[in-house]
Amino acid sequence: MAYTLTVGAVSRQLQPVQVSATKSLLLIELLGDTELTNAVADAMVALVPPGCDLIFTVATSAIPLAHALSERTGLPYLVARKRRRTYMDHPLIQEVESMTLGVGETLWLDGRHVERVRGKKAVLLTDVVVSGSTLAAMARLVERAGGVVVGRLAAFARTGATDLGDISAVATLPKS
Amino acid sequence: MAYTLTVGAVSRQLQPVQVSATKSLLLIELLGDTELTNAVADAMVALVPPGCDLIFTVATSAIPLAHALSERTGLPYLVARKRRRTYMDHPLIQEVESMTLGVGETLWLDGRHVERVRGKKAVLLTDVVVSGSTLAAMARLVERAGGVVVGRLAAFARTGATDLGDISAVATLPKS
Repeated sequence: MAYTLTVGAVSRQLQPVQVSATKSLLLIELLGDTELTNAVADAMVALVPPGCDLIFTVATSAIPLAHALSERTGLPYLVARKRRRTYMDHPLIQEVESMTLGVGETLWLDGRHVERVRGKKAVLLTDVVVSGSTLAAMARLVERAGGVVVGRLAAFARTGATDLGDISAVATLPKS
Repeated sequence: MAYTLTVGAVSRQLQPVQVSATKSLLLIELLGDTELTNAVADAMVALVPPGCDLIFTVATSAIPLAHALSERTGLPYLVARKRRRTYMDHPLIQEVESMTLGVGETLWLDGRHVERVRGKKAVLLTDVVVSGSTLAAMARLVERAGGVVVGRLAAFARTGATDLGDISAVATLPKS
């Protein structure tokens, strides 16, 4: 069933898509949706912990949101990658321990970026939280780089999919 | 040798990085650099062909620029992906014919996005042009989706690396 999502003055009709034989999810894309991205960023500013130095996110779909939140808060952002890039120098490598993904995923943080995390207070940013396993791997990366995680932000959380714990989300989505 | 890049009021010291045993390139990253991304987008607005309907880019590093250019022009943007995503429905698949890359690369455009290209005038957007092979594959994708390519934009072009042809770049970078 379609679902109407509203963030600030922006509404979107989300359609369920089949992602496996037994599973369908409401499709939400920030990538390519400038208006929704900016509405989420506007709503997210108040959720950024005070005293934070850095927004830490992961490729790919949360990147426009990281840019928009960086603009609004004046905080720099950093992007962990899901594939090694040729230019990376002594990257930190972190496995994502996922029960839902089936396949293993790995996060890569360029050594040059590790230096930008050291001694810094970081807020983690993701677009959609399902199991929280990617956020957990991002937290490990920040800690291994010598930073401190001071908050966890998500644009959207799927209800029932996870115990949100200390994750602040702009909106929740029904399960499917 | 380091190189100073200036775009509008923003300057960056670019460092050469070794990308293979015989090759070094000046490292330039828009990802994580909100200020440089916005300066490039400001300079790029004048390069967008009149009558254009759509900005068409490819994951990952040009995504923040696509968002920023979309904001400034009011044009929507679309992102082709380099990996298949589970939610894609009847994607268009396009091989990148690259002489420099060594390994083949593939672009994926979700079927839902194909519909947004049909009958539209698209400007292609990339961050760094080297051989032009990715732009050529992007052009094929747009045409196969029923759109028309009306321009090719790059934030940066490496001089000597390619005949720029009809590509408009905000700045050129020395070879290394």
